[in-house]
Amino acid sequence: MAEEGIRVKNKQVLFKNYVSGFPKDSDMYVTSESTISLKLPEGGGSNGVVLLVKNLYLSCDPYMRLLMQNPENSQGLPFNYYTPGSPIKGFGVAKVVDSRHTNFKKGDFIWGMTGWEEYSFISETEQVFKIEHTDDVPLSYYAGLLGMPGITAYAGFCDVASPKKGDKVFVSAASGAVGQIVGQFAKLMGCYVHLLKNKFGFDDAFNYKEEQDFTATLKTYFPQGIDIYFENVGGKMLDAVLLNMALCGRIAVCGMISQYNLEKPEGVSNLAQLIFKRIRMEGFRAPDYFDEYSKFLEFVMPYIRDKKISYVEDIVEGLENGPAALVGLFTGRNVGKQIVVVARD
Amino acid sequence: MAEEGIRVKNKQVLFKNYVSGFPKDSDMYVTSESTISLKLPEGGGSNGVVLLVKNLYLSCDPYMRLLMQNPENSQGLPFNYYTPGSPIKGFGVAKVVDSRHTNFKKGDFIWGMTGWEEYSFISETEQVFKIEHTDDVPLSYYAGLLGMPGITAYAGFCDVASPKKGDKVFVSAASGAVGQIVGQFAKLMGCYVHLLKNKFGFDDAFNYKEEQDFTATLKTYFPQGIDIYFENVGGKMLDAVLLNMALCGRIAVCGMISQYNLEKPEGVSNLAQLIFKRIRMEGFRAPDYFDEYSKFLEFVMPYIRDKKISYVEDIVEGLENGPAALVGLFTGRNVGKQIVVVARD
Repeated sequence: MAEEGIRVKNKQVLFKNYVSGFPKDSDMYVTSESTISLKLPEGGGSNGVVLLVKNLYLSCDPYMRLLMQNPENSQGLPFNYYTPGSPIKGFGVAKVVDSRHTNFKKGDFIWGMTGWEEYSFISETEQVFKIEHTDDVPLSYYAGLLGMPGITAYAGFCDVASPKKGDKVFVSAASGAVGQIVGQFAKLMGCYVHLLKNKFGFDDAFNYKEEQDFTATLKTYFPQGIDIYFENVGGKMLDAVLLNMALCGRIAVCGMISQYNLEKPEGVSNLAQLIFKRIRMEGFRAPDYFDEYSKFLEFVMPYIRDKKISYVEDIVEGLENGPAALVGLFTGRNVGKQIVVVARD
Repeated sequence: MAEEGIRVKNKQVLFKNYVSGFPKDSDMYVTSESTISLKLPEGGGSNGVVLLVKNLYLSCDPYMRLLMQNPENSQGLPFNYYTPGSPIKGFGVAKVVDSRHTNFKKGDFIWGMTGWEEYSFISETEQVFKIEHTDDVPLSYYAGLLGMPGITAYAGFCDVASPKKGDKVFVSAASGAVGQIVGQFAKLMGCYVHLLKNKFGFDDAFNYKEEQDFTATLKTYFPQGIDIYFENVGGKMLDAVLLNMALCGRIAVCGMISQYNLEKPEGVSNLAQLIFKRIRMEGFRAPDYFDEYSKFLEFVMPYIRDKKISYVEDIVEGLENGPAALVGLFTGRNVGKQIVVVARD
């Protein structure tokens, strides 16, 4: 007879049904009806589960909206769409409760793909990283600056955007998880940086929700044109930026948060600028760079310890406040990286 | 007293006035009122003229539409817009009548930027290339396959699109000057090629003007997705292609002929595909590759001599038929590279 662990309640945020338009809190619901044994089932159960973790910090990211759509409308994209009645999934920081994987042992902190619930089983460990935790860096950073959003900023700016000293850099959605990091990387590399929101000590800023004439506004900030645009917004913002790009500019396409909730995305009209100005526009995804994670840590850790990089988190307490926090990304409610605290250890 | 050459009539195609919408024949007019001395003025005159050429073959290219717009609406792009009352300018093949430049002598054939007229003065020779003419290659090819459109195809496909054997390649506007060459380069490199029009022995084709549902049609031709899209069309075509791109696909943006005549370009809605599929989309211009011209000739000449590359020209006789030929590009009247013959030697 297999040894049975203590059985506890497992509070969860479940996905209700496929979303069209803006997501609402009510597209998810919180339940405490589920229970879980705090021990891995013998033989890993039917799903090859190798880890049981206690979730601590959950990351709210714009791409999660994409997983809320009906896979039938997905045009065959290979996404792991949310299943109605199952927990929301996303990146987060967790503590190992039980392990059948040689790389992880009970008590380890990890970051990676997990569930929006108190405890999660993990069967795929390709995107799970052990955290070498030290007290001088908050553990929650591994759901942001030191996790997926951090690698996103690093890959998109340092690789895709091919920066060089003196480049004029424009970052949209700069108060979000990725934008604020990109701006600081760019500064550290000797670029002139302009962000949408003036919250992190950068050169200049304007708020795209308040601004009618993006094109003219950008022209005043970048009279010689934009060398690098780090794209988080899409739609009208992209159209205005295209008209203001410099010759041989680069657009690293990280996200298009303004478009994910639209039934029909806004049309972008100024793409012929790509020809006129020989612009390179390139999409990328953080998981393609996960194998460079240790290199990324070597790059970023000294800056954090020397306080050359600051990082703003918008922390919400409790799983039950998770749905509102996630939905708030799309109305610009958050100031800094949006984190949901499930537990602190 | 300076020696004066024979004075002859110089028939010209003059630009009438700035164009909005589709260009018409009547936006240009032909005149024989001008005369020219068949000898360079002493000291080069006030404009530093170094060559006097007799124009033979003129190239009709879609980008010429862009030079017809009012510079005031140009958003500061560094184009050499046409001047009302002055001759149309474009790439062409010509014969040197008089020269004050050490690289060129009387009787040489050249290709480069010239005027739509019987005789032209040339002061800038950076974009003028001497033709090493041999009888096995038609001289008119230097206004197409062996001139600017050829380098465009070479640069856009072999460099920008980063092709590899087995790639699935889609070429739009394939009956034009550049598209037909790209398709053949792709075949020679072991790619699967699909063109819009089935005129040159390629794998498959559909006509975008007749086709309502681009997206579904492309899916039938590229069930595994498009690795390389050579973009000549823009607008709705691009939107359909984006939905059919494969992971890590490349879009070489050469032109967007469907958009140049629109007051407001069509919006392209599916750009988020760049992120989902990590697509690189890059604009380029042939003149940036002119310094690789001899390398290009080494690459392409053996294929032409071995008849591995065929080339279709749509030849119109006489300067007076030039305006209609140029305008016809935008209604898809041409079959193959559109050339205007001014004289044959």
